[in-house]
Amino acid sequence: MIKFDNDSIIQLSRNHLLSYEVNFVKELLNPINQSKLKELCINQKILLVIDKNVFDLYQATIESYFQQNCRNYTIYLFEALEEKKTIESVLEICYVAQEFKMKRDSIFIGIGGGVTLDVLGFAAFIFRRKTRYIRIPTTLVGLVDAGVGVKVGINFNNAKNLLGGYYAPIASFNDKTFLRTIDITNIKNGLYEIVKMGLISNKKLFRLTQKYHKDFLEKNFNEYTDKVVYLSALSMMKELEPNLDEHELKRSVDFGHTFSTYIEEFSNYTINHGEAVGLDVLISSFIALKRGIFSKNEFNQVFELISSIGFSKKYKLPSLIRFHKSLELVRNHRAGNLNLVLPSRIGSCVFTNDCSIVELKSAVNFCKDLIY
Amino acid sequence: MIKFDNDSIIQLSRNHLLSYEVNFVKELLNPINQSKLKELCINQKILLVIDKNVFDLYQATIESYFQQNCRNYTIYLFEALEEKKTIESVLEICYVAQEFKMKRDSIFIGIGGGVTLDVLGFAAFIFRRKTRYIRIPTTLVGLVDAGVGVKVGINFNNAKNLLGGYYAPIASFNDKTFLRTIDITNIKNGLYEIVKMGLISNKKLFRLTQKYHKDFLEKNFNEYTDKVVYLSALSMMKELEPNLDEHELKRSVDFGHTFSTYIEEFSNYTINHGEAVGLDVLISSFIALKRGIFSKNEFNQVFELISSIGFSKKYKLPSLIRFHKSLELVRNHRAGNLNLVLPSRIGSCVFTNDCSIVELKSAVNFCKDLIY
Repeated sequence: MIKFDNDSIIQLSRNHLLSYEVNFVKELLNPINQSKLKELCINQKILLVIDKNVFDLYQATIESYFQQNCRNYTIYLFEALEEKKTIESVLEICYVAQEFKMKRDSIFIGIGGGVTLDVLGFAAFIFRRKTRYIRIPTTLVGLVDAGVGVKVGINFNNAKNLLGGYYAPIASFNDKTFLRTIDITNIKNGLYEIVKMGLISNKKLFRLTQKYHKDFLEKNFNEYTDKVVYLSALSMMKELEPNLDEHELKRSVDFGHTFSTYIEEFSNYTINHGEAVGLDVLISSFIALKRGIFSKNEFNQVFELISSIGFSKKYKLPSLIRFHKSLELVRNHRAGNLNLVLPSRIGSCVFTNDCSIVELKSAVNFCKDLIY
Repeated sequence: MIKFDNDSIIQLSRNHLLSYEVNFVKELLNPINQSKLKELCINQKILLVIDKNVFDLYQATIESYFQQNCRNYTIYLFEALEEKKTIESVLEICYVAQEFKMKRDSIFIGIGGGVTLDVLGFAAFIFRRKTRYIRIPTTLVGLVDAGVGVKVGINFNNAKNLLGGYYAPIASFNDKTFLRTIDITNIKNGLYEIVKMGLISNKKLFRLTQKYHKDFLEKNFNEYTDKVVYLSALSMMKELEPNLDEHELKRSVDFGHTFSTYIEEFSNYTINHGEAVGLDVLISSFIALKRGIFSKNEFNQVFELISSIGFSKKYKLPSLIRFHKSLELVRNHRAGNLNLVLPSRIGSCVFTNDCSIVELKSAVNFCKDLIY
């Protein structure tokens, strides 16, 4: 709608519908399976951005699938490391897309974990002012987190995800059979995001995670692990829906993502993101316990679950003063408020704007016993 | 809204309201004038990105205004050249923003012409996944075109505006008093965008442009030139409104922007954008004339207006074969269709998907007489 007065103001306002779907599938690339992916690919020009390691494992399957199901495709292999989550990687994909003469109605498809999908999504976000893209996550964290939201982003000037956008794919295909080929670190990475989701928003998910997390760790994937994945993704999307562009900076899904940023940075990114989230969940739960807003009994359940999932190696936590100071950067990112998420009981949470150095100290001391 | 079935699909859909306003003002930075800009700036942290030449002219005014009206500001001077419309320029602004510790609720303000506003807008578009920004255009083309839409973008790998986005400012302040300090080339640049708008969508604007374009050229700004600026911006916004994200690639505002891209490239960007648009308008009008869809009488009016505005120097048009071939790139950008806009009468237009080499040849020959 255009409103205007006599020569001084013109106002434009318009509603946009944002819509996407996440499809939970099995054996997506098996040619005998019908899927919406085929419908989307037919007659299209497609640039596939694929995690190198995933490609090594699935090359024949991927190539035969796209040879059969699209008009024209090319493959760009991506070395999916945190240090490759840069503007240079994005520009390289844009360069390849232009050389491949991608049009506005062409499609990018990302196959890989969070880093691959974030970088590919960013390229699609800016190429020709936006180009359609499809996500095919191949990791557990991809299935429940990176592959269900609308965020794309890269690191810049030592700040994680400083540049990016909110840009939904036309679809995600979350294929649980990819989990067969991921390693245990990767499984832990995803499990902690699942623990986070259950703890703040879905008691049933938390209970199922308590019961079946060992099936994940033993790679015994079954209907229960499927259920956990689905519920975790659903909980995530329910939390995201009213706040897709994060205009509200009090986000319960930021649980586990307040202390974790500096833990990752301090480890020089040798700790994986999920394990840093796991540590943050524990620190936050301990603070909630000490404040008397989270019961001893439920805290113990969280502690036991995290102990049972464990960490892939021993980490050193940051020294206290710098750790506490790092919260200032979080405040900056959240427009001045800390918005620290604390569990109040299993399945729900509260926000707080302060965290004293004394609180942090006792929480860190507590965690040390677990991870050193 | 979240819809989900039994463990296989989760659909998310949500309406977003996009809204912004363009304020037509005079003496915006004069401290005695009340404006919405003051309200927006108060208590905010602001990064000003300013065209160097504009800053040279208005330094004292700008500094005293922002010293009075915002909490904290810093100035980044930008060398507003087409060859600076790059990702490097965007990243430099992001770097400065981060060093300045801009938060999510901080504001970028761009003061300058199209290049400055495009680059600044792109930085705001990606910084912290989006940061609010305000546009203060200082050129005629800024007042009627670059400063009223939602496009941001940069050139990449020899392609104009290959990377970018659709991202509305929170407001634009279109201050006609800046026109006093722009040069004649810049005025021509804007006049051709005005001619374009009138010719395809607003007969009244076209008539006013015929009548008052000399006032622009003589820098005799008055209530009539104000009216032309306002009507041109209003026509532009009316055309943009139903199609802000360009999901529809048949855009009447692409009139003058089909042949112009290669004319600019061929001139190695020594021709200004508006004059290239002017040449494109003439070529397109000639093709329409020859096809018998545009009358001789109206064509002559277009021809006379363009002759009267003139060009700031002599240009060589591209050689025919490469010129015709360049239309393929336009097709790519428009998802396979040329969508060439041709005037059908003053104030309205039609689309066509073909343009033969013979047609182009006769149009180019005709134009040569005008510009050599």
